[in-house]
Amino acid sequence: MKATVITIGNELLSGRTLDLNFAFLARALAEAGVRVVRHFTVGDERPAMLAAVRAAETDSELVVLSGGLGPTADDLTREVMAELAGVPLVENRELAERLAARAATLGRPLTHVARRQALLPAGVETLPNPVGEAPGLWIERQGRVVCALPGVPGELQAMTRESLMPRLRTRAGVGVAVQAVTLRTLGISEAVIAQRIEDDAVDLTGVELAYLPQAAGVDLRIVGAGADAARAVARVEAALAERFAAAIYARGEETIEEVVFRLLRERGLKLAVAESCTGGLVGYRVTRVPGSSEVFVGGVVAYADAIKASELGVPAELITAAGAVSAETAVAMAEGAIARLGADVGLAVTGIAGPGGGSEAKPVGLVFIGLAGRGGASVSRRLQLPGDRHQIRERAAALALECLRRFLLGSLQVS
Amino acid sequence: MKATVITIGNELLSGRTLDLNFAFLARALAEAGVRVVRHFTVGDERPAMLAAVRAAETDSELVVLSGGLGPTADDLTREVMAELAGVPLVENRELAERLAARAATLGRPLTHVARRQALLPAGVETLPNPVGEAPGLWIERQGRVVCALPGVPGELQAMTRESLMPRLRTRAGVGVAVQAVTLRTLGISEAVIAQRIEDDAVDLTGVELAYLPQAAGVDLRIVGAGADAARAVARVEAALAERFAAAIYARGEETIEEVVFRLLRERGLKLAVAESCTGGLVGYRVTRVPGSSEVFVGGVVAYADAIKASELGVPAELITAAGAVSAETAVAMAEGAIARLGADVGLAVTGIAGPGGGSEAKPVGLVFIGLAGRGGASVSRRLQLPGDRHQIRERAAALALECLRRFLLGSLQVS
Repeated sequence: MKATVITIGNELLSGRTLDLNFAFLARALAEAGVRVVRHFTVGDERPAMLAAVRAAETDSELVVLSGGLGPTADDLTREVMAELAGVPLVENRELAERLAARAATLGRPLTHVARRQALLPAGVETLPNPVGEAPGLWIERQGRVVCALPGVPGELQAMTRESLMPRLRTRAGVGVAVQAVTLRTLGISEAVIAQRIEDDAVDLTGVELAYLPQAAGVDLRIVGAGADAARAVARVEAALAERFAAAIYARGEETIEEVVFRLLRERGLKLAVAESCTGGLVGYRVTRVPGSSEVFVGGVVAYADAIKASELGVPAELITAAGAVSAETAVAMAEGAIARLGADVGLAVTGIAGPGGGSEAKPVGLVFIGLAGRGGASVSRRLQLPGDRHQIRERAAALALECLRRFLLGSLQVS
Repeated sequence: MKATVITIGNELLSGRTLDLNFAFLARALAEAGVRVVRHFTVGDERPAMLAAVRAAETDSELVVLSGGLGPTADDLTREVMAELAGVPLVENRELAERLAARAATLGRPLTHVARRQALLPAGVETLPNPVGEAPGLWIERQGRVVCALPGVPGELQAMTRESLMPRLRTRAGVGVAVQAVTLRTLGISEAVIAQRIEDDAVDLTGVELAYLPQAAGVDLRIVGAGADAARAVARVEAALAERFAAAIYARGEETIEEVVFRLLRERGLKLAVAESCTGGLVGYRVTRVPGSSEVFVGGVVAYADAIKASELGVPAELITAAGAVSAETAVAMAEGAIARLGADVGLAVTGIAGPGGGSEAKPVGLVFIGLAGRGGASVSRRLQLPGDRHQIRERAAALALECLRRFLLGSLQVS
């Protein structure tokens, strides 16, 4: 089944609001084996909305609209759906009553504006809204489905999961025989992966292999369709896993911080961090995982060199001799984090994020990761990262977590 | 001038790559007064790309394509542009030589694949690429412009700024008489702003007022067009500035961390942070500003209560009596950050980000901001933030910086 997604709203066309609704819908549809062939964004204007639906219908069996179902005058999706179905808008009594009841619980009357949400195309099917009042709409014409979902992200997501997808799965060609696996990598470039696959003539028959660059790292997504999909995907996964084992940190959706959380918990270890150029980003990422207090005690952001000495016990002479951005300082920071914060494992980052501060010997993008264990093991890694200040810091934090992963697995050697 | 933007790439349709190129182009075009009426995303397929351009031409005088100019077999934009212009692809000698020279500096031969980039539609105008080799393409047909830009973000941005926009500005109707001002707010909701504007019957004649919700806070964008635009925008700006003065932290594009950086530098003050529930996010945000070492010494991520005591000197009895999430602890953390890290101003955050850890007395979303000055002034603020763990942490960090801004301006009172 081919689909076109149409997202509606002037704020999307302004470039000031990222279209996260499209990203959500595209992923949900792809998981059910629906192929999204096109995405339109149009403003809150009836002719543009109608033209988009008509263009979509030329080759898509499914057209999904998101947005324009709210109560205000620029919410035009109900009118467009009525026009497509060739029916008038009429007030849905039951819905009007629910809207009034909801307003009453908030101690307000049902305003004229809010009441507009009860106007629905006559006789058109609705999709229940699990988290709000206004339903989605579903019309079929000439074997094609056009459905309209809310633009409020929480409502869109709940309605997609609980109303739209179950309904789509009953239709032919949806939800069958699509197999997909994602292998997430860090510390290896897309070019190197592609070259190796070409050099080794890895057999990609029967699958599509997509390189999905992330803020740091590359996801490899293997997708197969048809009767033999499972076998083809498994074969390619094995071929990639064999070649890139060290760089693959997860299979599926797990993030690097989730992997590290799991490894620390399995080993009963507590982590402390010491950050310079990342300014707190490593700690922030570790604590994105709910329950991270189980494995994370805290950290020191040692932005000024004086704090590397006073709070982490890095000898001032070491900073003078080796430099604040050096393997020696990175390791001393990691050791200091353990000693001062009472952790089992210390992870440190020091580097030059730019734009200023670089030199010929220590250019912008030079970053050292330091790791230390309570038992005395310590390791450092030197990185030369591309990109601007923001990218260097994002990559440094992600690769610091990746080094920690390898350290915990015992596969990070002294370099 | 009306424009359609077409972004190209299977990775965009997968929903796994956010379309930041569109967001960039939409903003750049809007600033020049070009009205983006539609956005298409299509996959790497010739028929879909051609159909999108043809649909766009029905009402847009400008069609901007992004992507598909790279060297690999799925980069089809050159072929599509040749077909639109009705000309064959021919190798551009000069470009082939530049590509070969660039490969040579990397110590590589020019591969067959890379050489494809030198194939250009015969006789078609090019747009120089300030940061790469492959140029953009520009064709005019029946008074309409179709131009093709790279999909690599850095190249797209540089080419847009340095080649496309200067060229567009020479055309009629571009870059004239559009006036826009953005007022950025934190700590006040969209609903409250809208209600006040309605209650006071603020005259919005001649402008469009857009509410642009950010991860935290709302931007108010006032846009006017036409001869009287400047006056209308200034009138509305004054009306909003008068009503929402306390909540407006910037006029224009400045971020809250940039505002705080500027205020600290003007006052010659050094900042230290102490973070619990944000895990490092406040420090990370402060250090996003290049040169932040001038005003920021560092911080302590005191995720475990023991670290609040050992590294920040928060009395253990205080934590027991008032709780780790309390106004008292927040202030003690801020004072500890000053004392321990040698700063002039301390900013602390402690709260319950969830999903676990909440209680009836201290529910998920409860956050205290603590502020202290070396002179002894200290202030705390209690917040009850909506959203999930991620949103609560984002909002807590943004509002912490906003409290710091008000503290530095002397307008944050003891609460």
